[in-house]
Amino acid sequence: MKNISILGSTGSIGTQALEVVSENSDALNIVGLTTNTSIDLLEKQIDAYAPRIVCVMDGDAALVLEQRLKKKGSSVEVVTGLDGLIAVATATENKLLLTAVSGMIGLQPTLAAINAGIDIALANKETLVAGGQIVIDAAAAKGVSLLPVDSEHCAIFQCLMGNKHQEIDRIIITASGGPFRGQTREQLESVTLAQALKHPNWSMGKKITIDSATLMNKGLEVIEAKWLFNLSIDQIDVVVHPQSIIHSMVEFIDHSTIAQLGLPDMALPIQIAFFYPDRIANNRPALDFNQVRELTFEEPDRIAFPCLQLAYEALERGGTMACVLNAANEISVARFLNQEIHFLDIPRINRLVMEKHQVISNPNLDDVLAVDNWARQIAGETVRKSLN
Amino acid sequence: MKNISILGSTGSIGTQALEVVSENSDALNIVGLTTNTSIDLLEKQIDAYAPRIVCVMDGDAALVLEQRLKKKGSSVEVVTGLDGLIAVATATENKLLLTAVSGMIGLQPTLAAINAGIDIALANKETLVAGGQIVIDAAAAKGVSLLPVDSEHCAIFQCLMGNKHQEIDRIIITASGGPFRGQTREQLESVTLAQALKHPNWSMGKKITIDSATLMNKGLEVIEAKWLFNLSIDQIDVVVHPQSIIHSMVEFIDHSTIAQLGLPDMALPIQIAFFYPDRIANNRPALDFNQVRELTFEEPDRIAFPCLQLAYEALERGGTMACVLNAANEISVARFLNQEIHFLDIPRINRLVMEKHQVISNPNLDDVLAVDNWARQIAGETVRKSLN
Repeated sequence: MKNISILGSTGSIGTQALEVVSENSDALNIVGLTTNTSIDLLEKQIDAYAPRIVCVMDGDAALVLEQRLKKKGSSVEVVTGLDGLIAVATATENKLLLTAVSGMIGLQPTLAAINAGIDIALANKETLVAGGQIVIDAAAAKGVSLLPVDSEHCAIFQCLMGNKHQEIDRIIITASGGPFRGQTREQLESVTLAQALKHPNWSMGKKITIDSATLMNKGLEVIEAKWLFNLSIDQIDVVVHPQSIIHSMVEFIDHSTIAQLGLPDMALPIQIAFFYPDRIANNRPALDFNQVRELTFEEPDRIAFPCLQLAYEALERGGTMACVLNAANEISVARFLNQEIHFLDIPRINRLVMEKHQVISNPNLDDVLAVDNWARQIAGETVRKSLN
Repeated sequence: MKNISILGSTGSIGTQALEVVSENSDALNIVGLTTNTSIDLLEKQIDAYAPRIVCVMDGDAALVLEQRLKKKGSSVEVVTGLDGLIAVATATENKLLLTAVSGMIGLQPTLAAINAGIDIALANKETLVAGGQIVIDAAAAKGVSLLPVDSEHCAIFQCLMGNKHQEIDRIIITASGGPFRGQTREQLESVTLAQALKHPNWSMGKKITIDSATLMNKGLEVIEAKWLFNLSIDQIDVVVHPQSIIHSMVEFIDHSTIAQLGLPDMALPIQIAFFYPDRIANNRPALDFNQVRELTFEEPDRIAFPCLQLAYEALERGGTMACVLNAANEISVARFLNQEIHFLDIPRINRLVMEKHQVISNPNLDDVLAVDNWARQIAGETVRKSLN
């Protein structure tokens, strides 16, 4: 049995990960689960997966759950807040931690687990986008594996199997192009929230769906890929592939390109991270090339979708700049979801905040957390100014 | 330096292989070369690559070359016939033998090299189509690698890197569909030799170009794949992919599909076979997805192109049946190239010969050679009868 804890078990990735655990209950065992506030769902997950420890980020909700569990005579330990999250992440039974919370809150518990020698299945973008070198150095020092849990990086991870790092020429991350693919900058001026929330291929959380519409998601993936696969900026390309069947590719120095294909289903990256280096059978549908029929490719429009370019610029600037872009983007997307700003204000605000930042080249964890706070504050101020 | 001999160095694969040797003259050294009759080209190759031994299959041509070399004061050993071919194949310096002759003549020297413990880069279809179990058993007994030198099997070979055999669900061999893709059986009744010789994507020898037009080539690749990758018949699928960019794919038990992509260029499979397990840089053009734009897929038409189905039937029947199909097809294609029969006579004759054959289930080499002779004779008779 492989002992696993999941940070963010009531979210989109978390619930899909628990499905994979159910499908493989002879091989996987749940140690810890966490939620922000969804204690009803977490309670059901406790009944189904019998963790030893759970964290409810919200203190009041944690108390409510604790009372309910006490009544049942449950012995599950309930913890709360960031300390609670770290307690779940570093539970000594853990062989693997799936970090599936969204946002900067994922960084510290993931680092703590790495420092405790626990392998990481990483579905939290901020850990690498903001933590970058710190996280990679810690993982290298502890000999810990970072297993990517998203379709693109998992594709690259698979394409690299059996090949040597020095034989990589470049990676090609595919992008669906989102709901606004093919639209001009002028057309994007007037798009609505409802339109932005309609992703053509994937059903995901709201934040990441908006990030897909702006191509910020692809930009964050470029930054993650740099760290995960130890690449230089010019080794990372993005191609728009609207069918989302090729999940990404690697071109080697001999100009042979290896691609990973599949139906859009997060169960595969989750399963690969849980069972690596083995592949295991599942009863999910296979690709049928009589149905696929056509795969197309086009260049991303970096003028209509400036967020992708911002990510390359952040990498170019290095240090804390990617952390700033990510923080600014979280604020601008939240404000867009709140219908306070327009779609094209998202890249505009992100860029304004980046322009105000003095890069710290080799930040420590405290620097990163401070810069993240600063960028959120500046982004909030920038939104307010732009509304006046 | 890696010592290499090439059987069939003046043919299409042979000359491309020597280009790869030239591009990597610091790493590769030529021990032996062979030709059927092209002594002018072989002489140039001797000047350029300084082999120790060469074979000219034709005895008279061998004498002419020997005289010429003597005049130059060359010390190159000239041998002839099948014994000569075997002498080149088993030269003690050989680390790797590239078998790039076409036809059954490749089987015995390849087997001899395997039995001498020499790794094989295999571009000769007959070795596995006719030799199948015999060749695989010999390679296993001697711990010899069989490295495929064609784009489809090399693609599968690459897709399997870093994965386990028991994790293969199926392989998907891609087919361009040839010049007659989309045509009905009725339309194929009247196609000409010139039309059949126009392959849309690859420039190859005449025999293999016709085999591409009938889909026999794909059928032979299915048979080869069975042996190379130790698969059952139902693990081998064929999909028509007219752009010839995806060279083949492997679907694993987790329904993840890995594909190998590249421009059509035999240098890649040659290079991979020469340098495996390393990849080496080259200055050939890379795939550009802004130029590729579209990859399409369709089911092969097994009614208009019965040769593909014949290959599956031959595998189903087992033993010597694939040898019979291959031999019958060599004769029928030769007669078509000679404009003696129509395009659709090729599968017709192949089937008639197969129907007359009593399968030998576990043939030895003598059985295979005898059955091959028998099938050629029957195919010749069948052509004669059909002309009367």
